[in-house]
Amino acid sequence: MDAYTCIRTKRDTRAYQDKPIPEQSLQRILQAGRMAGSAKNRQPCRFVVLQDASKKKELATCGQFAQHIGSAPVAVAIVLPQGAREFDAGRCAQNMMLAAWAEGIISCPITMHDNACALRVLGVPQGYRVSIVLAFGYPPSSDPRPKGTPRIPLEELVHWGNW
Amino acid sequence: MDAYTCIRTKRDTRAYQDKPIPEQSLQRILQAGRMAGSAKNRQPCRFVVLQDASKKKELATCGQFAQHIGSAPVAVAIVLPQGAREFDAGRCAQNMMLAAWAEGIISCPITMHDNACALRVLGVPQGYRVSIVLAFGYPPSSDPRPKGTPRIPLEELVHWGNW
Repeated sequence: MDAYTCIRTKRDTRAYQDKPIPEQSLQRILQAGRMAGSAKNRQPCRFVVLQDASKKKELATCGQFAQHIGSAPVAVAIVLPQGAREFDAGRCAQNMMLAAWAEGIISCPITMHDNACALRVLGVPQGYRVSIVLAFGYPPSSDPRPKGTPRIPLEELVHWGNW
Repeated sequence: MDAYTCIRTKRDTRAYQDKPIPEQSLQRILQAGRMAGSAKNRQPCRFVVLQDASKKKELATCGQFAQHIGSAPVAVAIVLPQGAREFDAGRCAQNMMLAAWAEGIISCPITMHDNACALRVLGVPQGYRVSIVLAFGYPPSSDPRPKGTPRIPLEELVHWGNW
């Protein structure tokens, strides 16, 4: 898939087929996260990859809208040192989700409202927090794009030269 | 360019040719930002596009490492409502920078350390902050990739099943 089409058509989607993600696709997703730029090239993001069903279900209890972690074949937690900028985690997450979508794999970022719960389930040492969990899987139908609220028109988003 | 190659080869780069960015490429960059997913589809990101030389130079005084805004043909400020998550701005920025790179355009995110200065230069109303400024331009040589610190190996970044 060409890059612009991939960017333009990616949607955050919360329902997945019960079908595993091939090793090669998962490697690409993780490499995409690794290659994301970061402030001063500090590379603050670390990844915890979950494939075990019981562990995924446990993690799903740590967020308010996290049930679908249980139905995703793979979940990847992005872990940051305390004090690191969420901005870099967003760049990293977007890279991973776009690389996934280029493989036909859909995804959704999930907030861990009870961060202590997520840190405990993932076995993360002190000094870190879970920035986000990304759920990955194959779309359940031939059209994975949800029919949700459309994007705001570009003319409303963009100011030229001055707000 | 295919999506994975685009993601894998994108580097943050701070030196640009004195060559304008075509209107169509700029539209693609902005559309890519528009299409980025966001928490609860709130779409918090707004863009201020700068092409005027004196305005870019003024904005360059608002960050500690922001001089290269002046040499970039286009700078795009991502503006967030106060309290919105930086994570969504990171996703949006990465979309824009990847769409640019697919067009052969390099970029670099720049922090506005003096946010009040940036808000004033950009004419942003109260209740917002400048999350980041993205500088866009063409690479000065045939190989735009800087020879900086390499990425940490994947084995060090990834924990399988448990940290």
